[in-house]
Amino acid sequence: MKFSRYKRDMPFSYALGATLSYELLKTNPNLIRRVFLRPNIKHGDDLAKIINQLKAQNIDISESNKAFNVLGAKENCLLIAEFDKPTSTLSYDTTTPQIALVNPSDTGNLGTIMRSAVAFGYQNIAIITPAVDAYDPKTIRASMGAVFHLNIQTFPSFDDYLESCTKNNPTSSRTLYSFMLAKTAHTLPQVTPQNKNYTLIFGNEASGLPADFATKTQPVFIPQSENVDSLNLSVAASIAMYHFCQR
Amino acid sequence: MKFSRYKRDMPFSYALGATLSYELLKTNPNLIRRVFLRPNIKHGDDLAKIINQLKAQNIDISESNKAFNVLGAKENCLLIAEFDKPTSTLSYDTTTPQIALVNPSDTGNLGTIMRSAVAFGYQNIAIITPAVDAYDPKTIRASMGAVFHLNIQTFPSFDDYLESCTKNNPTSSRTLYSFMLAKTAHTLPQVTPQNKNYTLIFGNEASGLPADFATKTQPVFIPQSENVDSLNLSVAASIAMYHFCQR
Repeated sequence: MKFSRYKRDMPFSYALGATLSYELLKTNPNLIRRVFLRPNIKHGDDLAKIINQLKAQNIDISESNKAFNVLGAKENCLLIAEFDKPTSTLSYDTTTPQIALVNPSDTGNLGTIMRSAVAFGYQNIAIITPAVDAYDPKTIRASMGAVFHLNIQTFPSFDDYLESCTKNNPTSSRTLYSFMLAKTAHTLPQVTPQNKNYTLIFGNEASGLPADFATKTQPVFIPQSENVDSLNLSVAASIAMYHFCQR
Repeated sequence: MKFSRYKRDMPFSYALGATLSYELLKTNPNLIRRVFLRPNIKHGDDLAKIINQLKAQNIDISESNKAFNVLGAKENCLLIAEFDKPTSTLSYDTTTPQIALVNPSDTGNLGTIMRSAVAFGYQNIAIITPAVDAYDPKTIRASMGAVFHLNIQTFPSFDDYLESCTKNNPTSSRTLYSFMLAKTAHTLPQVTPQNKNYTLIFGNEASGLPADFATKTQPVFIPQSENVDSLNLSVAASIAMYHFCQR
């Protein structure tokens, strides 16, 4: 059986584990190419349920240790789904808020942001490259399957993202909130969006957002003690999403 | 030179990297036992600064590759501080809010919660065992040094924590907020603490809090979509702390 170690430029990726694969099956069954099952294991109720549903959809299931070894799956990972990466585009509707991540560099953070985004009703995430891979098995795992509920589109620069906003909705005037420390920044509790036509923008874990975002967008700062340098990126993004979705 | 791989039952631990060691030096210089420097490297300004401050405090500095190899330090880790773990007790003052973590199982989450706790002015964290180690080098790294700003006390059970609250402040009636899904739970935006004499309680990543916390404390729920099973633990705790410290 032919099997490839995951690489970013491949058109397909892997959901490691029955729970993640079940999220994939619920949301995007047509993307699943084939499924690997760890040989010689007892099938509990949850595993039996997903296997039955995969069979009902005529998805190819084969027992093989190779996939588990090559992908470094943990012992408790019993099922792997190989799937075509979706090619989604963002919704630019004026009632659709968006998240823009500029150069995120950690798969754990990106996955956790996805999980919070789905939790708080944000379905559209723009990723500005260079960035970690939204469909890396590690990102998928950290997202707990939330990645399969999202429209994700990558852009080579923030200006390309803005151009795409204008091109797809010429009359829309999207409000851009950049999370950063800046003299002109409002603190998060002060900010109340007028409508849902906004984007929350977050920078890289180490370097944050470029300084010119303070003038070309509306800077926002989460009040915090001087005893820490910053909040964790996924924490900051999640607090921001929580705040905005409450208003 | 004698050097030990880190084990939880050792009375000392390691801060891996100049930035973490600098936090330690700023907050708890007397805890530092000795410092290891990676041999044959150029000393940039930041590294030279911390080395000078360590020397000014007569702390033993030696060049050695062994510590870096044994602790699996990354290439960009140039300095390791070995330090005595502090034995702190919580402040039970009625003006001091606390965080209680019941059986946290991930060093990354624990460290990230510490980082957010310091950011939002929470200096006291109770950890109910079994739990990951607050002074594991991985926790310290995830905390970005916040661990050195905190009072951390572990308890073998939640009842032991409550007993300690009563014993240390018999007249205090601490309000207990448990983050969990329960029929009687208020949603987070509805909750306004009357004062700072409260504890925010969070359960294990996989299993959450035991069901009886819904009756013996005030359950609180962070509103979220049914498309996710839950929020990441460090995200949930950070949102809760952000909300409470704003009220």
